[in-house]
Amino acid sequence: MQTWSVSEPLVTAITLGVRDVAASRRFYVEGLGWPVLWEQPGEIVFVQVAAGQMLALWNVKSMPGEYGDVAHPPAGAPAIPISLGRNVESEAEVEREMERALAAGATLVRAAKRQAWGGTSGCVADPDGYRWDIVFNPGLRADPDGTLHLAAVD
Amino acid sequence: MQTWSVSEPLVTAITLGVRDVAASRRFYVEGLGWPVLWEQPGEIVFVQVAAGQMLALWNVKSMPGEYGDVAHPPAGAPAIPISLGRNVESEAEVEREMERALAAGATLVRAAKRQAWGGTSGCVADPDGYRWDIVFNPGLRADPDGTLHLAAVD
Repeated sequence: MQTWSVSEPLVTAITLGVRDVAASRRFYVEGLGWPVLWEQPGEIVFVQVAAGQMLALWNVKSMPGEYGDVAHPPAGAPAIPISLGRNVESEAEVEREMERALAAGATLVRAAKRQAWGGTSGCVADPDGYRWDIVFNPGLRADPDGTLHLAAVD
Repeated sequence: MQTWSVSEPLVTAITLGVRDVAASRRFYVEGLGWPVLWEQPGEIVFVQVAAGQMLALWNVKSMPGEYGDVAHPPAGAPAIPISLGRNVESEAEVEREMERALAAGATLVRAAKRQAWGGTSGCVADPDGYRWDIVFNPGLRADPDGTLHLAAVD
């Protein structure tokens, strides 16, 4: 894939299995204000989250037909080991975005703090427990076209 | 967030907890040819996947410090109910991308087929079992700036 250009996303959809599509919609659309692309109430909501990319909030009960045997972990089991991240420009913005997410109904997982790797981040969970990082990484910068550069923080 | 522009990603990172960082690297970087941004062998590999967005393949054992009690489901339990998707331009391209992923070491979950919603998709799994959809959706189109338009397929 030597011809890959940053303008061609390698990931065009992030699909999360959700227990209650209406609750997910309240969090992401009404709470955070994210833009709906298309929806079928109770079944799926598509939200645009980046150029050429959507987040799909899909009723987990409908997933096995396409994805095989998938399900949320049972109550009391560890949560799913993924996180979606939002990188912001400053420590103060981490705090503001954490507050915005909590006001929209997120659950606090870890309050924002300086991390061993040199940046500042906090973690919240959506209505299904999916983790979201809010991150300020002083070693990350983006060119105007979206090409990223990442370096270890001194 | 009425000022949101498609050029400002709402998701800047997708972090997957992986059991074997080297195996994930072999699949995504050596197998699929995706571009590494930064890595710490055995711990984490960052790959750019869209404008302003990276995929982080992080040793799942290191995640609880930031994400709380997270872990892969035990052997035999249903897989994690998420999928990352790649939308392509035709049914033939679905087949080609499925073959490419399988050649890189993916596991077949569902062979490509016409779906009830009107498009064609197949599903493969990465070394940790994370699902990837390869999708042709005739109801999806993108403007040059990456703004998406999604409609039900007739």
